[in-house]
Amino acid sequence: MSVVTSGRYTFPNYTLVFFIFLQLGLHSVEGVWPLPQSITSSPERYPLNPQAFYFTYGSQSAAQEGCSVLDEAFKRYFSLVFPDYSSGYGFLRFSVDKPFTVQVSVGRDDCDSYPDEDSSEQYTLSVSAGQASLKAKTVWGALRGLETFSQLVYQEDFGSYYVNKTEIEDFPRFQFRGILLDTSRHYLPLQAILKTLDAMAFSKFNVFHWHIVDDPSFPYQSRTFPDLSAKGAFHPMTHIYTQSDVRRVISFARMRGIRVLPEFDSPGHTQSWGKGQSDLLTPCYSGSSPSGTFGPVNPILPSTYKFMATLFKEVSSVFPDSYIHLGGDEVNFSCWKSNPDVRAFMMKMGFGADFTKLEAYYMENIVNITVALNRTSIVWQDVFDYHERIPKDTVLHIWKGLPASYAAELSAITKAGHRVLLAAPWYINHISYGQDWRNYYTVQPLNFSGTEEQKKLVIGGEVCMWGEYVDATNLTPRLWPRASAAAERLWSNEKQTSDVDKAFPRLQDFRCKLLRRGIQAEPLFVGHCKHEYQGV
Amino acid sequence: MSVVTSGRYTFPNYTLVFFIFLQLGLHSVEGVWPLPQSITSSPERYPLNPQAFYFTYGSQSAAQEGCSVLDEAFKRYFSLVFPDYSSGYGFLRFSVDKPFTVQVSVGRDDCDSYPDEDSSEQYTLSVSAGQASLKAKTVWGALRGLETFSQLVYQEDFGSYYVNKTEIEDFPRFQFRGILLDTSRHYLPLQAILKTLDAMAFSKFNVFHWHIVDDPSFPYQSRTFPDLSAKGAFHPMTHIYTQSDVRRVISFARMRGIRVLPEFDSPGHTQSWGKGQSDLLTPCYSGSSPSGTFGPVNPILPSTYKFMATLFKEVSSVFPDSYIHLGGDEVNFSCWKSNPDVRAFMMKMGFGADFTKLEAYYMENIVNITVALNRTSIVWQDVFDYHERIPKDTVLHIWKGLPASYAAELSAITKAGHRVLLAAPWYINHISYGQDWRNYYTVQPLNFSGTEEQKKLVIGGEVCMWGEYVDATNLTPRLWPRASAAAERLWSNEKQTSDVDKAFPRLQDFRCKLLRRGIQAEPLFVGHCKHEYQGV
Repeated sequence: MSVVTSGRYTFPNYTLVFFIFLQLGLHSVEGVWPLPQSITSSPERYPLNPQAFYFTYGSQSAAQEGCSVLDEAFKRYFSLVFPDYSSGYGFLRFSVDKPFTVQVSVGRDDCDSYPDEDSSEQYTLSVSAGQASLKAKTVWGALRGLETFSQLVYQEDFGSYYVNKTEIEDFPRFQFRGILLDTSRHYLPLQAILKTLDAMAFSKFNVFHWHIVDDPSFPYQSRTFPDLSAKGAFHPMTHIYTQSDVRRVISFARMRGIRVLPEFDSPGHTQSWGKGQSDLLTPCYSGSSPSGTFGPVNPILPSTYKFMATLFKEVSSVFPDSYIHLGGDEVNFSCWKSNPDVRAFMMKMGFGADFTKLEAYYMENIVNITVALNRTSIVWQDVFDYHERIPKDTVLHIWKGLPASYAAELSAITKAGHRVLLAAPWYINHISYGQDWRNYYTVQPLNFSGTEEQKKLVIGGEVCMWGEYVDATNLTPRLWPRASAAAERLWSNEKQTSDVDKAFPRLQDFRCKLLRRGIQAEPLFVGHCKHEYQGV
Repeated sequence: MSVVTSGRYTFPNYTLVFFIFLQLGLHSVEGVWPLPQSITSSPERYPLNPQAFYFTYGSQSAAQEGCSVLDEAFKRYFSLVFPDYSSGYGFLRFSVDKPFTVQVSVGRDDCDSYPDEDSSEQYTLSVSAGQASLKAKTVWGALRGLETFSQLVYQEDFGSYYVNKTEIEDFPRFQFRGILLDTSRHYLPLQAILKTLDAMAFSKFNVFHWHIVDDPSFPYQSRTFPDLSAKGAFHPMTHIYTQSDVRRVISFARMRGIRVLPEFDSPGHTQSWGKGQSDLLTPCYSGSSPSGTFGPVNPILPSTYKFMATLFKEVSSVFPDSYIHLGGDEVNFSCWKSNPDVRAFMMKMGFGADFTKLEAYYMENIVNITVALNRTSIVWQDVFDYHERIPKDTVLHIWKGLPASYAAELSAITKAGHRVLLAAPWYINHISYGQDWRNYYTVQPLNFSGTEEQKKLVIGGEVCMWGEYVDATNLTPRLWPRASAAAERLWSNEKQTSDVDKAFPRLQDFRCKLLRRGIQAEPLFVGHCKHEYQGV
């Protein structure tokens, strides 16, 4: 009566599945997800005693005690390495005389900075008797190495912890590895965002793209324009992000080496903005009189650009990242077309009846505002599709199309010399029955026609969790471990990770690690974890 | 960038959605899910003060204080009616002199019995100034009425509780309204099962079909055959249901008027049984020698039937329900075919090469075992498809086929005089993007060709949550509120609930109630609830 519909992929049969259970029972020393660029391990293993285990700074390290990012990470990773230590279980039954020390050395004291697009995440990790040596150029690289170390440690059935002799050299394939959360279609309580940031670090994601406002609601509480959330949020007190909430998110993300990229999408997707800011949206007309409804942002009024300049000035002071996402997608022209003042403006500007020119005019103005604020703009691919004159350093965000068509877009945009960010194959809010993580895993981001120079313009990829059907009730199991499949594609060497069937038991193993860390990650297929989710 | 793929149904546009928000802001007095058979309400409303609110037994009631089912229900529903009372919020700011009493009267003292297939769930509820009168034939009907009453109470923005003057006459359309959980493909911790039972009562489901064992694991700890779980469970200590766990489930379900229908599926789907019971499964052959693998239960050995008789004797002593589900689906003949002893038995019995006859022979024996135990058998439709001589009172469980084809099966099985249970259109583990609850809602279970007598043989329907991709991490958001759509189809008058668009805001409202009660029910579409899920 239970039927597995056959689809594009083959399901492992039960015999294979049971074999995998057996394999998971034994410890796999290559159990690091995403797979490091280079890893050598030996069967030689060392017991770890939580009472004689230390993270320390190497004597040559540029960062020393007092480095906020690493001090906090040491505390965090101690609990991740010894998940049942605090419960008093598992550490009294054996005694190890020699302590084990993880010595962390970084080349630069960037403890108080924010991770950015140029931050190195490279690290080397050498685990031997009594110590591990973790070396990185930056604290962000050290965080990646700590995550890897924590995944190398395993617990035997009797409760003892071990780590094997291991050598790792590692760095990410792509600089930008993001996750988008949409807090407008549904409000996500702060805890849901923080939990996601925590889980992101486990898969080495490094950008949180915060699609913070959109048509349905405006939860960002602006200092300059408090009416935007007071009138545009689902609820002015319970469904907003205060300035302090936003600071909390940015600080929590920084501690995990994660950038926070805010998006204030315009001129479309702005219905909620109109509630708290009069004259911002275009009045739509029905015949010769206003219909009472509103369309996209009104691009013909000087007041619009004054408002946007003020808003983005605030945004750039609140969000430290050098990127700001400006949206620019899915602009519906029908309201603009209906409005006589807009049509008159089109004539005056010589745009004729080509509304893409009006849209380009608007985006150009907005991009210039962020240029003046010394920020790099990211815009959705639509802006490239209708606009020939965007500044070269604007990043184009590819979201449209089937697997067949985003390659063509990658080719065209990089040919024009723009950097691109790929989201199209990772619209993870689109669910289907079965192991769709395989589709996310087998994406080949650089498999498009273009020169080596063009391929270098692909800065990375992004997993998008749009909020039509997602809120805090289902976010976590929908995101994990499916997003982790994309994480390995974006971090690891493609040649070493080309076999999706080989990835399957590793990802199952990693998913059990996520459960152990309290992340409500859904199962990939039939089976079990030693520690099941107990959070109901 | 966020794209809603257009599918078989139309999505409400945003204007409509916002209109619905407005509607939800006002209180809808018909906010009972599933919709009662008859409900009349007036704008006249009465404030409820938790400090002067009582459930009592009517003086004529056959059940009085000390009735376990109702005593516990009164306590439970007090918290559901006043969700923030325990936190001390919302009850000191107003004072009502007159108390409000819900007087419950039942016609029979069945407080210590179990709900069964003949239990009446009919009730009448009359809410007027200062009191509500709830009358039912049985305590099970009273439970349904208490659920309805709890959904009639609403809280205004200032925190006060109200209930409107209301008259309700109600009874279920179908006697059997079940949910299947699969605890073999993934183990579900006890708490996940109890939480599901709780939520089932909110949607007036009344049967928990416990698909407790299957190929991957055997978590039921048998008193008679402890090796079945000791060797066949994912883990012999952490991934099992002890006798005490099972008792807990049955008792918890009883308190909510829910029957527990156990399934021990055979002869297929029994791989895990073979680990703890040697000689039970058929040895498969490769050429002239055993291959080392095993197939379905071995139907040719007397020891098989002795084992089954003993096991089912235990099962019938543990599970009080008069139904036992025997499975009988998806038997693969290849192993039987390979085995020379099985082939010799076929010759001896005159079955020729028709293995469906062997399967029928097996099922006949198993059904006779349960007949001897005074139990009604349910089997999957496969048993009807290959077997002409099953006892008339065996219930057939329909699981196969697209919407087009289950109607034909309903027609054929009822024509043969068997009762049927419909699961095919409610395989809720099959997920897809968008509002698939609409498909569950628009099922017409009696829309097949047949006489009135045939239609009466449809005892109800079942929502199946198979466990290939489901465990405690994603069970709840996947089940709710999607299963609630089926619940209304099975309880309410079809003519009054034929408009899926009218159901949409009601189901949104009900889903917010589920959140308020701590059920992690996922959203139906863009929007918000006053009290969001905070459980991350």
